[in-house]
This record gives sequence, structure tokens and C-alpha cells, in this order.
Amino acid sequence: MDQQLIKIIGIIAGVFTALSLLPQLIKIVKNKKAEDLSIVYLLTLFVGLSLWIWYGVLREDLPIIITNATSIVLNILIICLGIRYKENKN
Amino acid sequence: MDQQLIKIIGIIAGVFTALSLLPQLIKIVKNKKAEDLSIVYLLTLFVGLSLWIWYGVLREDLPIIITNATSIVLNILIICLGIRYKENKN
Repeated sequence: MDQQLIKIIGIIAGVFTALSLLPQLIKIVKNKKAEDLSIVYLLTLFVGLSLWIWYGVLREDLPIIITNATSIVLNILIICLGIRYKENKN
Repeated sequence: MDQQLIKIIGIIAGVFTALSLLPQLIKIVKNKKAEDLSIVYLLTLFVGLSLWIWYGVLREDLPIIITNATSIVLNILIICLGIRYKENKN
């Protein structure tokens, strides 16, 4: 398959996985509640995303770099809000 | 950097992002509750992971294929449990 097309598929894949965290972030902000979210999940994801960025840099793979960088920003925001709203039962 | 080492970084990155979903899955099973989880997040992630697998196949990138395949299995399990426990307030 054409290399350009492969890159486009990678970018679309990355947009989906990166933006997937957005509805979760919106839900937490809206409900001010995150007790069902696992903090271990969010921290493991943080380590994984950091390594993906490193991998993307080493392989000079732009879709991987951009999308994991976006994911990590959303992930950090969810961790901060998650800690803040963790004990909020209302 | 050595190509073999780059591949190892990719595999470790993938193990972290794939296994990050595991504590979330365990938490849902344990508490039988998933009301704070966004189903839009889980479905968007599903589309994204499917596209990543396709991208990995096209680029013949084994770390991407294996880890996203693992992620998608965990993601499907979380979606099923999420739907089941969505309305369970206890």
C-alpha cells in the first residue's frame, strides 16, 4: 500500500485513541466524580504513553509522536481531576 | 540507536499501554460498578485500537500489532462489563 496512505491511517488511528480520553475528561468535569476510575490504570497509561513517544522519536514516526503527546496531556488532566474528585460521592 | 533496542522500547511501551486497562477491568469486576466510566471513551478507543492494528499490519510493526490487539481484548471486556454495571449504583 502507498506509504502516504499508511501514514494517514496511522494519523486517524492516533486521533481516535488520543481523543478517546476526551469524553472521559468531559464526564469527570461535568459530574465532578471519578470514583470508578482506576488510578493505577491512569498511571500505567502515563508510563506507557511516555515510552510510546520515545519509541516514535526513535522510529521517526510522526503519527505515533503527535497522538501519544496529545493522549498524555489528556491523561495528565484526568489524573489531576481524578485525584481531586476521587472522594467526591455527590 | 540500535534497531533491536528500539523494538524493545516499543514492546515495553505497548505492554504498559495494553496492561494499563487491566487494573480498570479488575476495579469494575471487584466493585461491580462502572457509572463514572464514559462509554463514548470506550467506543472511541475501540475504533482507534482497530485502526492501530491495521496500521501496524501495514507497517509490519510487531510491537504495535501485539499491544493493540491485547488492548482491544481488554477494551471489549470493559465495554461488556461497563454496559452490565452501568446502572448498578451499589
